[in-house]
Amino acid sequence: MSKKAVCIISGGMDSALAATIAQNEGYEIIGLHFNYSQLTEERELKSYEKIVKDLGVVESYTLELPFFKKIGATALIGEEFSVPTDGVKPGIPITYVPFRNGVFLSIAAAVAQKHDADAIFIGVVEEDSSGYPDCRENFITSINSSINLGLRDDSELKIETPLIHLSKEEIVKKSLELGVKLEHTWSCYKNSDKACGVCDSCRLRKKGFENLGLTDPIEYL
Amino acid sequence: MSKKAVCIISGGMDSALAATIAQNEGYEIIGLHFNYSQLTEERELKSYEKIVKDLGVVESYTLELPFFKKIGATALIGEEFSVPTDGVKPGIPITYVPFRNGVFLSIAAAVAQKHDADAIFIGVVEEDSSGYPDCRENFITSINSSINLGLRDDSELKIETPLIHLSKEEIVKKSLELGVKLEHTWSCYKNSDKACGVCDSCRLRKKGFENLGLTDPIEYL
Repeated sequence: MSKKAVCIISGGMDSALAATIAQNEGYEIIGLHFNYSQLTEERELKSYEKIVKDLGVVESYTLELPFFKKIGATALIGEEFSVPTDGVKPGIPITYVPFRNGVFLSIAAAVAQKHDADAIFIGVVEEDSSGYPDCRENFITSINSSINLGLRDDSELKIETPLIHLSKEEIVKKSLELGVKLEHTWSCYKNSDKACGVCDSCRLRKKGFENLGLTDPIEYL
Repeated sequence: MSKKAVCIISGGMDSALAATIAQNEGYEIIGLHFNYSQLTEERELKSYEKIVKDLGVVESYTLELPFFKKIGATALIGEEFSVPTDGVKPGIPITYVPFRNGVFLSIAAAVAQKHDADAIFIGVVEEDSSGYPDCRENFITSINSSINLGLRDDSELKIETPLIHLSKEEIVKKSLELGVKLEHTWSCYKNSDKACGVCDSCRLRKKGFENLGLTDPIEYL
């Protein structure tokens, strides 16, 4: 029987690459996408649907997490705060959604348990990123243990983070090597037809392409 | 400034007691209830609302988790399986909702981060219970560490489980001592006006009263 991986796919470049790596390692892919009232919910969902089509997944879950809007406390949801556009700063930015990856991984664990999956793939990046605490390797290792303690006793689910120590430049390079259709991905924090180019997420993505002397296939304002 | 606790309150006896203990320890209570398409969603919500009124909470969140229905794989949601009524058995029963407490605690952590809360209270019971893996102390200790690693760097959130080693008899006794209005709570897994008396949850609750020679104030079929 072939091995199965639940791949959390946001629609961005990183998670598209992580899922492609899973596929290259021989996993059947169960796609998992979250609508959590993020500003770019609609745009990300479109990208997710293109990516799972590109991958040819065996199952796809698009799950609604309406509660993040009630919790709020982040610039990525609602109008309370604005997305900063003046460059990536040290520390945890206002775009941090409290414990988002903890919630995502917990739900992914429930999906994995249902399908008897062997792994969860998540495209977190530790160093060359926005500094979110729930993207760090020590957090992922810890919650991996917690998940196996909380699942049925024979569970040996592994959380795989193939991008965690990569730079954005290496992510672009590897995506091109593996044929990820980067024109189908969306990284911008803002909800517009073209990427803004100035939010942290756009800046990190653009730097990846620029360092390689390449042009990003998506359009910027 | 007074200390704050996010109390996960299902509407059942155990979580009502856990929240009352938190209040007795001097915490301000932030009530947190989940609608996850469980068979008794409506009935539990009614009990939750009475319990938070009894407690006089400072905030109350009722959050919708529609995705558990899409995941399924449990007798507590939907019509796929029936709730067993032939007595509590060893092992993990079909009423186990995959990683439910992991998901609940992750969302509670997000709420706690927003309010700068000091603790999460959850009414899990390890020995005298249905045998769910995500009710065990080793799981709770582990996810407590994971949560603090995934939250902002200054977070020292503590998951409190004051009932974890109590028997149902001790839970009933302590509830009466602390004045928990047990007539406002609902434990049955089935959706009816009166509790069924024969599902695992009813059996465990009834045993608690019987062992004390007391009568449960709720009505049974």
